[in-house]
Amino acid sequence: MTALSIIPVTGLPEVRPGDVLAELIAGAAALEDGDVVVVTQKVVSKAEGRLEPVDPDDPRGQRAIIERESVRVLRRRGDLVISETRHGFVCANAGVDLSNVDEGYAALLPVDPDRSARRIRDGLRARLGVSVGVIVSDTFGRPWRQGVVDVAIGCAGVAAVVDLRGTRDASGRELQVTEVAVADELAAAAELVMGKASGVPVAVVRGVDPTWLREASVRREIVRPPGEDLFR
Amino acid sequence: MTALSIIPVTGLPEVRPGDVLAELIAGAAALEDGDVVVVTQKVVSKAEGRLEPVDPDDPRGQRAIIERESVRVLRRRGDLVISETRHGFVCANAGVDLSNVDEGYAALLPVDPDRSARRIRDGLRARLGVSVGVIVSDTFGRPWRQGVVDVAIGCAGVAAVVDLRGTRDASGRELQVTEVAVADELAAAAELVMGKASGVPVAVVRGVDPTWLREASVRREIVRPPGEDLFR
Repeated sequence: MTALSIIPVTGLPEVRPGDVLAELIAGAAALEDGDVVVVTQKVVSKAEGRLEPVDPDDPRGQRAIIERESVRVLRRRGDLVISETRHGFVCANAGVDLSNVDEGYAALLPVDPDRSARRIRDGLRARLGVSVGVIVSDTFGRPWRQGVVDVAIGCAGVAAVVDLRGTRDASGRELQVTEVAVADELAAAAELVMGKASGVPVAVVRGVDPTWLREASVRREIVRPPGEDLFR
Repeated sequence: MTALSIIPVTGLPEVRPGDVLAELIAGAAALEDGDVVVVTQKVVSKAEGRLEPVDPDDPRGQRAIIERESVRVLRRRGDLVISETRHGFVCANAGVDLSNVDEGYAALLPVDPDRSARRIRDGLRARLGVSVGVIVSDTFGRPWRQGVVDVAIGCAGVAAVVDLRGTRDASGRELQVTEVAVADELAAAAELVMGKASGVPVAVVRGVDPTWLREASVRREIVRPPGEDLFR
């Protein structure tokens, strides 16, 4: 096991609807085969035009957008809504975000974040000739624990979950805990060099286990089917 | 913002009750001021003698230990128990673990993981003259998302949560999402070089934001008071 590097990608221009993210990233980052590129949801949503006009002084209008983006509300307290999105994510306000967006607009989650990741991956391959993994990340709260962390909402070319079933621990006993959500850990690691306020929406993780680089999907591997969930 | 490195610490001996972890880590890692040392719960529990004899073929005996380590059971399905520990962590089997422990023993969580982290930090300062942050990590499942991730259960000398309240995003608007659980993100990042089966229980994160290096506590900063929790 060798060291990993987590490298912030600076110098990206402000992203606007219609921008091709792969082109912007290719112009700002020196990528190598096997890198994992983590891109925050906000710039993906902006590039894909997932923006919705909203009056910042109209909480009812904001609530209407959140309801429309939700398939089910799990909890409500004051202004806070915890709901399930069409993708199966459970998060605050259905992932609708008012920060880091032009005044008067809300950013909605990408329609299909795995596809968003695939498009960036394909675009980077076409432009730079490199084969990289791509993760689209977002910032989620958690039950029972304070503070938010970044998690993966989409991926391409890098595993969402690595299955260690059947492998043995250092003393030869079969492992109890077997499936590691490496895409979530990569998203969390990338956030450490982004900072919420510093405007660095992309980071590169270099040195990941090459066996993790394969076709993958957050939706298929990480979103837990409601029937198997003890907290839904 | 500069790059981070995540460096696995290899060559540690098998840890036994009574071992001084700071001494073992000091002998295996070239540490620098400002590093964050992430140590997995398993070796902390072993060094602190938090081992309990258990018959691997006696599920009732195992369940009794889990009940004793729990203050409240939240969910139960088959063999799986989701419970709250004395520390306020909500996790599977009250954090009691049978893997990577000698046959016939279960590892219980440290009594006070913040104190465990402090002891390692103080020991590293005494031995190497360096000032580092220390995180004790463990592997937790999550509701709604498949796969496990490493999180912080104790810390010393490095923030558990960084408060960005009042700072402004790149467009000058006040941030909505303000408190980032950097200790959890550091634990997740470290796991990426540990691997569940490879027997690397310690990793070093080099290059973290120096403002994060302060007195801190997972218990005070991350454990959410039950009254504020929507899912308890």
